[in-house]
Amino acid sequence: MTQVKQLMEEWLQHRSVLEELLEQIDDQYVDFKPWDGAMSLGELALHVAGWNDVFVSMVKTETLAPPNIPECKSMTEVRNGVRDFTEKTKATFESINDLELEAENSSTHPKLQGAKKRYLTAMYDHELHHKGQLFIYARMIGVEKVPFFR
Amino acid sequence: MTQVKQLMEEWLQHRSVLEELLEQIDDQYVDFKPWDGAMSLGELALHVAGWNDVFVSMVKTETLAPPNIPECKSMTEVRNGVRDFTEKTKATFESINDLELEAENSSTHPKLQGAKKRYLTAMYDHELHHKGQLFIYARMIGVEKVPFFR
Repeated sequence: MTQVKQLMEEWLQHRSVLEELLEQIDDQYVDFKPWDGAMSLGELALHVAGWNDVFVSMVKTETLAPPNIPECKSMTEVRNGVRDFTEKTKATFESINDLELEAENSSTHPKLQGAKKRYLTAMYDHELHHKGQLFIYARMIGVEKVPFFR
Repeated sequence: MTQVKQLMEEWLQHRSVLEELLEQIDDQYVDFKPWDGAMSLGELALHVAGWNDVFVSMVKTETLAPPNIPECKSMTEVRNGVRDFTEKTKATFESINDLELEAENSSTHPKLQGAKKRYLTAMYDHELHHKGQLFIYARMIGVEKVPFFR
C-alpha cells in the first residue's frame, strides 16, 4: 500500500466514526453549544469536514483558502454537507502521490513548515481533536450509543 | 531521525499542550464533569496519561495491564501525576527501536492487530481524542487562554 493510501485509510476510519456519531444527533440539537462562545454542533461538524478538505488540497495547491461551508439548519443538512466534503477530500487524497508528500511545502506557519505531508498530519490531528469534542457534545444532549472513537 | 523518535516527538508535542492546558485549571474544578456519567476533569487527564503509558509499554510487554492511577484530590496532584506518567512513557519510548515497530504484535483486538507500531498509533489517537475533550471541559469552566491544539 502506498503511504498516501495508508494515510487516507487511517483518516477515513476517523471520518466514518464522525459520520456515525452525527447519525445519533436529533435535529433539535443542530445549534447546541456546551459554552456560550463555542461553535454549535452543526458548525463544528462542518468546520472539521470543510477545513480538513482545505488541508488536503494544500498538498496540491499550497493555498490556504477558506472552505465553502454551506449554511445548515438541520442535522440532515449537516450530515449531507459533511458527506459531500468527505467525497471531495477522498478524491483529492487519491490524486496525491508518495513523492509529493516528501516535497518541501511553502507554508510560513511554524507548525506546518516542512514536507507537504505535514499538511496531512495537521489535518489528521484536527479531525481527532474536534471529533473528540463532538463526543462530549453528543453525551451532553443525552446520546447514549456513541461509537468507539476509532 | 529514527521512526520511533519521530513518533515520540509528535506525541510529546500533544502531551505538552495537555500539560499546558492543565496549568490553566483551578483546584476547585478537579471534579468537574460536563455530563453526569462523564469522567471528571482530573480523572480524564490521568486516564489519558495512565493508559497511554500502557499502550507504549505494550510494544515491549504485549501485556494490557491497567495503569496504576493515583487518587488525586487537587489539580496540583493531577498535574504531578500526569508529569510522572509522561516521564515514564518517554523512558519506555526511548527503549524501543525501529525494528520492533514493524514486528507483528500479539493483540486479539481487531483495532490493534498488526505491527507493534499500531499500539503507538492507538496511543496517539487516544491522546488527541481526550485532549480535545479536555479543551471543552476547560472552556466550560471559564478558561479563556487555551493553548493551540498542537
